[in-house]
Amino acid sequence: MSSSVSPLAPKTVPDMPVIAGIRLATAEAGIRYKNRTDVLLAVMDKGTAVAGVFTRSKCPSAPVEWCRAKLKGGKARALVVNSGNANAFTGKTGRASTALTAKIAAKAVGCSESEVFLASTGVIGEPLDATKFDGVLGRLAEAAEPGDYLAAAKAIMTTDTFPKVATATVKLGKAKVTINGMAKGAGMIAPDMATMLSFIFTDAPIAPAALQALLKSGVEDTFNAVTIDGDTSTSDTLLAFATGAAAEHGAPKISRASDPRLKAFVKAFNQVLANLAEQVARDGEGARKLIEITVEGAKTKASARKIAMSIANSPLVKTAIAGEDANWGRVVMAVGKAGEPADRDKLSISFNGIRVAKRGARDPDYDEAQVSEAMKAPEIAILVSLGLGKGRDRVMTCDLTKEYVAINGDYRS
Amino acid sequence: MSSSVSPLAPKTVPDMPVIAGIRLATAEAGIRYKNRTDVLLAVMDKGTAVAGVFTRSKCPSAPVEWCRAKLKGGKARALVVNSGNANAFTGKTGRASTALTAKIAAKAVGCSESEVFLASTGVIGEPLDATKFDGVLGRLAEAAEPGDYLAAAKAIMTTDTFPKVATATVKLGKAKVTINGMAKGAGMIAPDMATMLSFIFTDAPIAPAALQALLKSGVEDTFNAVTIDGDTSTSDTLLAFATGAAAEHGAPKISRASDPRLKAFVKAFNQVLANLAEQVARDGEGARKLIEITVEGAKTKASARKIAMSIANSPLVKTAIAGEDANWGRVVMAVGKAGEPADRDKLSISFNGIRVAKRGARDPDYDEAQVSEAMKAPEIAILVSLGLGKGRDRVMTCDLTKEYVAINGDYRS
Repeated sequence: MSSSVSPLAPKTVPDMPVIAGIRLATAEAGIRYKNRTDVLLAVMDKGTAVAGVFTRSKCPSAPVEWCRAKLKGGKARALVVNSGNANAFTGKTGRASTALTAKIAAKAVGCSESEVFLASTGVIGEPLDATKFDGVLGRLAEAAEPGDYLAAAKAIMTTDTFPKVATATVKLGKAKVTINGMAKGAGMIAPDMATMLSFIFTDAPIAPAALQALLKSGVEDTFNAVTIDGDTSTSDTLLAFATGAAAEHGAPKISRASDPRLKAFVKAFNQVLANLAEQVARDGEGARKLIEITVEGAKTKASARKIAMSIANSPLVKTAIAGEDANWGRVVMAVGKAGEPADRDKLSISFNGIRVAKRGARDPDYDEAQVSEAMKAPEIAILVSLGLGKGRDRVMTCDLTKEYVAINGDYRS
Repeated sequence: MSSSVSPLAPKTVPDMPVIAGIRLATAEAGIRYKNRTDVLLAVMDKGTAVAGVFTRSKCPSAPVEWCRAKLKGGKARALVVNSGNANAFTGKTGRASTALTAKIAAKAVGCSESEVFLASTGVIGEPLDATKFDGVLGRLAEAAEPGDYLAAAKAIMTTDTFPKVATATVKLGKAKVTINGMAKGAGMIAPDMATMLSFIFTDAPIAPAALQALLKSGVEDTFNAVTIDGDTSTSDTLLAFATGAAAEHGAPKISRASDPRLKAFVKAFNQVLANLAEQVARDGEGARKLIEITVEGAKTKASARKIAMSIANSPLVKTAIAGEDANWGRVVMAVGKAGEPADRDKLSISFNGIRVAKRGARDPDYDEAQVSEAMKAPEIAILVSLGLGKGRDRVMTCDLTKEYVAINGDYRS
């Protein structure tokens, strides 16, 4: 864990309202860390719908495999999250560990094991001793209260320097519904489920299939548009839980994602995802600059995404931003290596609104001093205009600093 | 330019023999650097065959476009290389600059402009003032001698910390032929032409089409199997020149790459390419460890390559090696994110011959102290056994250190 909070951390933390049907509790189980919470139990009322998207890694963790299998039921009563050990690449032991954790949680909450969802984050390859949850989860189930989402977000942190929460309140039909979210993630962040762990809770009455469709669509331009280092975790997990409690005060029951009454909800839901995803980029390991990369004028949106990600994952671009250098030559390089249609002689590039390259060469009006000053800002927007079509996309990343290398390489030296 | 030589530099530099038909000269033209050579002119005798492979970047430099066009003729009389300015992303000015350089060189050497090959390396986006070559190239053409390959390799360096040369002598028919090579490259190194610039010279009488086939095939497991940072240059250029002078003392004229008499030559040619490619990895910016990654048991060789490159380009794997940490969990992560067939429960991983993971979990016989000791070596071999098929491949890279970040990010701060 890093000792100092990222300078890019949000200045304020929102008040997180209660969501009817969700109760939370955290504990110090001593999985790996000392003197901090490392287990979160969320207890959901009966009838809570669940949806999830996961890492596309070919070597997923045991909890990811567990959740994928249980998602078919569409119902959730408990979520157990631990930090410090990812229970990934732990073979049969890992599968036994998830089964035992689910058994303990099911007993504690009074539900079926197939209604228990699990997420683990931390070291890969170390067996997770699930017997540590024995007793702990029983106490947590008793202590669980509608409530402290910030404490929950803290319990799931690993190398994160700040807890990540977001909330939105919106009308569904004539009823007010709430969406709360939390996330953790700082390294090993790449598309195909950007954050390692994120959980969304709402009291909206949305059926599992509709919730799954919302989540799958919402993740595309939020979590999947964030990269820290291009490394995809084996544990990436995003789960959404909808208790349906708002039906009691008049919210309509939604069974299809295309239901027009969902319009405002979808917007708010996606804003919560986008907010959390941006916080993940703001907490990138060693990050000192938040970088937004927009590619416009591409042949298609998919092509724009691929080029934007090529820029976002380029160590040379990221180190240049760390050095406050508007090195557009490296941006050209990253456009070129993406393998997507691009015409050098139509390419324009701006940093924080100042155009430095125009139609394939240095912009004649480009003022070095002005750009250098602009590069000192903590947030850098890179705009690449390809001039080929209408494809446009935007991704978020952070700079690559010596601190990243120190966090990931120094701990043994 | 870095002030200290990479600790991974070869301990000895080979004596570079003369190659009949090739004359070299270098000069200080003051393109960007002061008090060092920055221009190389190689003059070839009439009848010299040329072949080339180039960056696959969609935004190639002006010299790359020039060489691609001129390669169709198959004949070369002059090679002009400058360091300090890549003449990339310079628009019409760039094209005018290559045309003017070729004109000056053609006049100096007494050949057609279409027999002049150009390569530039250095900063992107700055116009290259070709008038600086006026006078310089004329003097170089007069001064050129069959010669000093090490001096030539020094003139083409940018952030390289040592000049890179390799040589081999081999029988072609009953005649002795020589192959000399040089390369430069330290950052912005990735597959699809790994090194930024490399030139191979031989006196073997090989026709252009055959030479092109040899080069294309040879590059696959040498330069294209090296990555420093996954960033592909806009300037990557590998040219091979065959003067044919060895025909005078009995070497057979070769018109097809499949000619069985070429067998020993091909082996030696590929060794020179492999030697130069490895030197590029040894001079990776900030490198302190040379990393060889072998993937075996993949479905195909192409699949093994993709997985090996995913490991080689992972910042988390590279920082772990920098920290002398046998962090096989990160290797699992990189295998998983490659998107190629892999079965977690069949996966085994070794570091420098010590197996740390076996069939999807930590190897029970794995001794942490022994592995920690092994990780102190300057050369680290990672072996990943997938257990799925017979596909096998090997790539070279280096670690990711704070020095890399400093070289690429600090120069403005």
